[in-house]
Amino acid sequence: VDLHLDRLPPVRPGANLADALRAAFRDGRLAAESSLPSTRALAADLGLARGTVTAAYGQLAAEGYLVVRQGASTRVAVITRTQLAAPGPVARPAGPHPRWPVRWSLMPGQPDVSAFPRDVWLPAVRRVLARVPSADLGYPEPMGHPVLRRALAGYLGRTRGVVTTPGQVVVGSGFTALLGLWCGALHHRGITSVAFEDPSLPHLRSTAVSAGLAVVGVPVDDDGARVDLINAPAVVLTPAHQYPLGVTLSPARRAELSRQAVAGDVAVLEDDYDGEFRFDRAAVGAVQALAPGQVGYAGTASKVLAPGLRLAWLALPERQVGPLRDRMLATGASAPPVLDQLALADLLESGAYDRQVRRARARYRARRDAVLDAVAPYSDLVVPGGIAAGLHMHLRVVSSSTEAAIAAAARRHGLGIDLLGRHRLLESDDPETRPPGLLVGYAAPPDHAFAPALAALIRVLNDLRCPR
Amino acid sequence: VDLHLDRLPPVRPGANLADALRAAFRDGRLAAESSLPSTRALAADLGLARGTVTAAYGQLAAEGYLVVRQGASTRVAVITRTQLAAPGPVARPAGPHPRWPVRWSLMPGQPDVSAFPRDVWLPAVRRVLARVPSADLGYPEPMGHPVLRRALAGYLGRTRGVVTTPGQVVVGSGFTALLGLWCGALHHRGITSVAFEDPSLPHLRSTAVSAGLAVVGVPVDDDGARVDLINAPAVVLTPAHQYPLGVTLSPARRAELSRQAVAGDVAVLEDDYDGEFRFDRAAVGAVQALAPGQVGYAGTASKVLAPGLRLAWLALPERQVGPLRDRMLATGASAPPVLDQLALADLLESGAYDRQVRRARARYRARRDAVLDAVAPYSDLVVPGGIAAGLHMHLRVVSSSTEAAIAAAARRHGLGIDLLGRHRLLESDDPETRPPGLLVGYAAPPDHAFAPALAALIRVLNDLRCPR
Repeated sequence: VDLHLDRLPPVRPGANLADALRAAFRDGRLAAESSLPSTRALAADLGLARGTVTAAYGQLAAEGYLVVRQGASTRVAVITRTQLAAPGPVARPAGPHPRWPVRWSLMPGQPDVSAFPRDVWLPAVRRVLARVPSADLGYPEPMGHPVLRRALAGYLGRTRGVVTTPGQVVVGSGFTALLGLWCGALHHRGITSVAFEDPSLPHLRSTAVSAGLAVVGVPVDDDGARVDLINAPAVVLTPAHQYPLGVTLSPARRAELSRQAVAGDVAVLEDDYDGEFRFDRAAVGAVQALAPGQVGYAGTASKVLAPGLRLAWLALPERQVGPLRDRMLATGASAPPVLDQLALADLLESGAYDRQVRRARARYRARRDAVLDAVAPYSDLVVPGGIAAGLHMHLRVVSSSTEAAIAAAARRHGLGIDLLGRHRLLESDDPETRPPGLLVGYAAPPDHAFAPALAALIRVLNDLRCPR
Repeated sequence: VDLHLDRLPPVRPGANLADALRAAFRDGRLAAESSLPSTRALAADLGLARGTVTAAYGQLAAEGYLVVRQGASTRVAVITRTQLAAPGPVARPAGPHPRWPVRWSLMPGQPDVSAFPRDVWLPAVRRVLARVPSADLGYPEPMGHPVLRRALAGYLGRTRGVVTTPGQVVVGSGFTALLGLWCGALHHRGITSVAFEDPSLPHLRSTAVSAGLAVVGVPVDDDGARVDLINAPAVVLTPAHQYPLGVTLSPARRAELSRQAVAGDVAVLEDDYDGEFRFDRAAVGAVQALAPGQVGYAGTASKVLAPGLRLAWLALPERQVGPLRDRMLATGASAPPVLDQLALADLLESGAYDRQVRRARARYRARRDAVLDAVAPYSDLVVPGGIAAGLHMHLRVVSSSTEAAIAAAARRHGLGIDLLGRHRLLESDDPETRPPGLLVGYAAPPDHAFAPALAALIRVLNDLRCPR
């Protein structure tokens, strides 16, 4: 197979080959079904190391752009020629829901708030106050300040491969509020139901119900959501790191999702609640880029900075922007405070946000490794599920322990921990179809509390091995 | 008439007699219908200047606690013995709605954002960052940070006579968002309609409609809203300074409103959007204090600091607190960012907020006087309506000019100005029942733009006198 190099933008050594290929797929220079050269041949043609090309192909296959088959040439997937305009917002995990008095907490959904960079935030506010025009202190544009929308469009394209423009970015006061508006806009358009992954966060499903929509479930297996079973005109998904199971949407499913979204005019909301935190490899790019006319992307500063900032964003398909704005005006919802928006833009543009991501990623990776080490001797009871990513770990229960028994043990040891059962659409105790699970949030405890919290978890596992 | 002085808390010279009397009315030490001594007698008994007592009586009469009749003794009104728990939030004027290209703007609804105290805000943020516990940077309590709720309860009691506790204060992202939640909570409770003053702000009525309520009107005359004509189980009012007409709710109407609210279990929302800005006397206290079990109070930092901060608050009747919180959780609405909440609390507690109020009040009073001087020679065309307060003035049109003619003249001179007609529930051109009016917002223009804007207004009035 030979690839006409003029179909690719110039790729210099060290530049991002994956980005160049993505752009070529999107604008049609590399057509669906066309074969790509072998990694060895392309590396030679471009003067790149072969490992660089292999990594780029692997990344693009994981994102659904490429189809890799053993013994056959790598091909461009059928899905990549899509419109350049896509659907609505995405979901974030909730804060802790303690159900018993806790001494130590491994509740998921919280980042390490003690790592909030106070020494970076204050100078950003100072710079903002020094230069913001007074007129910007009036009633804000509901969709967000143009400076932040521009900074976010750049950041999302660069770090998550999101295909968007500043005009399609909406800034909001937390993901849940944006989800409520997105659902409200669907309802206003006459849509009556929305699908959520089963399991998923109950409070996000409630938000959809409050907005007037019926919620249906989409089963999740080891390849992520069963996108072939989406039975609604709209769906909220967590493709990069399924919440709470921790799996990632497989390349085939990503391709199938975008094909189906375009063919069936399904409004997809990609909740990228912890997309910055992949530990074993570069993060898989957003599904949104495969069908930007159908898929809306949602992100948040809650995990990288702090939930208390109340800053989240959507990158919407163009045709959804006006209806969402109408919904904001109708309900009185507004953009976050202008000074906070501009301080976040300052962090994004100065690179301080990226530095914070890297610091937090190293920290959470080490935390995750510590949990893995601690639970390894208990593989007869629990087995880690999902990929090396995020702020929480799903522990599959492989013994006969029930969630009720786990909760009782956790209560005995004063440990705050979450359980899988409450995330299911239909609660059930049938261990065949609904295997029990523990959700361990390892990000939030301050350093001094992490080791004791892990020790409490081990005491819980010991109790399960030797029931009282 | 003799007043047993032991019915009053100790009142020292210089202390606030009105506060002491209010407390005595509320806890029943001064019963309804009882007579008060003459101002001369009470002044002698308490060792106060007679002017102090006269001012206190006048204030309390304006607030509906006292009934003053010529030639008869001053009596405690029937209304003052009420429960200590009241209903929902209140409304704020919108930002500008330019309808033609403007060179100069006197659109109401905006404060002077160039007066935002940047040099006060930054040190407050610095102090907050230095002392806020990390745990407070997590997902915030939806009703607001306890420190701000405490600071607001104190401020509102002190400056507006609001009877509340920190637990009844709700902090929100702007008044309109809080109004939407308040209406949503009513709807959830089975209430189907809400009354608004006619005229009032259209976007606030739309918010109620979006929350599922039907909107009915309450006529407004020179004594404020015709509270005897409230024909709904809930009502949103602007008692201190009716928006847009600028009149104040008369003492008799205040008493009637609270009597009726208690008797008919009407949920009242008192929108105190500019309550800090009375120029001719001390501001009339909140109606909320007359029936705190029925009347919710709403205020905002948008006029004193800047709308871009997105900080507003409610002081709710106790029984409405839980339902509003449920509504916030259901819709994904949340409290404003924690750092902003704490910075506002810092300003309230340090006195910086009060200083800002005084500075702005002096500034807006001078602006209003300038408008009065400018329009005085045109009293054959327009007559100022309402009280000396706030950030806008209502000019009644006493000539045969229509609003269409005024709009045409304003467009000719590139002047942004608002008109009364669009604030009515039913738009109509019948000048008998719907006299035309201009709404002049004098607060927003920066200094260099105020004189030219006034000059443009005068050119508009000249055009109306001599139609082309």
